[in-house]
Amino acid sequence: MHINPSVVLVQTQLPENIGAAARAMLNFGLTDLRLVSPRDGWPNKRAYDLAAHAGKVLDDAKLFSSVSEAVADCTRVYAATARAREMVKPVFTPAQAMESMHASCEPTAWLFGPERTGLSNDDVALADAIITIPAHAEFTSLNVGQSVVVLAYQYFALHKNSASSYPTTGPEASPVGSKSPLASKQELQVFFNRLEKELDDVDFWKVDDKKPKMWLNLRNIFSRAGLTEQEVRTLHGVIAELKRGRSSD
Amino acid sequence: MHINPSVVLVQTQLPENIGAAARAMLNFGLTDLRLVSPRDGWPNKRAYDLAAHAGKVLDDAKLFSSVSEAVADCTRVYAATARAREMVKPVFTPAQAMESMHASCEPTAWLFGPERTGLSNDDVALADAIITIPAHAEFTSLNVGQSVVVLAYQYFALHKNSASSYPTTGPEASPVGSKSPLASKQELQVFFNRLEKELDDVDFWKVDDKKPKMWLNLRNIFSRAGLTEQEVRTLHGVIAELKRGRSSD
Repeated sequence: MHINPSVVLVQTQLPENIGAAARAMLNFGLTDLRLVSPRDGWPNKRAYDLAAHAGKVLDDAKLFSSVSEAVADCTRVYAATARAREMVKPVFTPAQAMESMHASCEPTAWLFGPERTGLSNDDVALADAIITIPAHAEFTSLNVGQSVVVLAYQYFALHKNSASSYPTTGPEASPVGSKSPLASKQELQVFFNRLEKELDDVDFWKVDDKKPKMWLNLRNIFSRAGLTEQEVRTLHGVIAELKRGRSSD
Repeated sequence: MHINPSVVLVQTQLPENIGAAARAMLNFGLTDLRLVSPRDGWPNKRAYDLAAHAGKVLDDAKLFSSVSEAVADCTRVYAATARAREMVKPVFTPAQAMESMHASCEPTAWLFGPERTGLSNDDVALADAIITIPAHAEFTSLNVGQSVVVLAYQYFALHKNSASSYPTTGPEASPVGSKSPLASKQELQVFFNRLEKELDDVDFWKVDDKKPKMWLNLRNIFSRAGLTEQEVRTLHGVIAELKRGRSSD
């Protein structure tokens, strides 16, 4: 069974952009809208004015206070950003992303950042991959509502047109040979929390200033790997055993 | 020489939609905007508010009183409409239209109708072909600004890709954002040897029979992640510190 992607709008400043996103979503068959701390509160009349026929998408929108909560039940997360990041993550065009998504059939979320700043590095770190919409070199910054239009359109266009002609495995499909489903973002977060605590305990970071960047890089290794549930359990085991070994010395 | 298409907005009711269209145009490298009798007059501040960085596109917009004047210098005209018409004209998806456009290199215009009614049959009659954006069967009516987004995006995506200037990033490409080169297989092996020894020391595998499969799965996590040299160093650090923490207990 195929699951349509969720659209996650992070700290959107203008309710009009939320409304425009909802309208475009419904045009292209998407209905699961998630809002992380919209600046002007929620619900908001200005969003409804722009949503036209898509008021129901806004009625059903779910509200979250953090990105990690918003994507907790997803196994694939894409961050829409035009900025190059100092992060080791695959970068896809919308068409490439939709092709890989089509092959995977997993609960998927797309993240869109606030108008002024875009997604923070911490938010991007939660993603498995980046989607960058190809644009004119001097004007790469798309309006957030228009970015949703592009991704939703591209998703719908590939799905409608592909009609079973698509390969069933792809680079982004769950790891070949794996029988375990991909870990949810929540399972990954629990693992990250444990790893962080363990590294804190042994003063891994040495210099406090360096921790944010080091910890970001470390999480990126694991979020990039597309871990299965079984693999997350294995990694929990690795930490538990290393710790047990330590305390029994 | 290639000529970028002109965007012709016919009797647009909301200046905001003209501004949004201009913004999307510039993002995707289009600059020739033509307005046929915009309802609220021209120029209009509300359009500029929405155009963001694309005010220049609005400054340069040409004003016409009829569609036929607006497209007089074009040799290919596409009408963007979702409604089936009683007219014998080819109907393209955006992708198909952009491909045929690319092949033609002729002065081309795209027509977009007013919000409430869409293009009149007389306007569509002026076009060589129809572009219909694929959309959900029950919600086929796109906002006019969002329709411009879709066509401009699709145009740019196909052009950039065909021009071969677009970076072929993907799962096979070296992770973008990385400054450190990918770790060599040898560096990875050294890391694996160390991790294995450490896990042996704490009797991680419990049952010897299970080790080969468990160890394979564990290595797969890291080989799949496409680690950089810097990341391998970081992971060495994690092991070293966990071990140091252990022996100092």
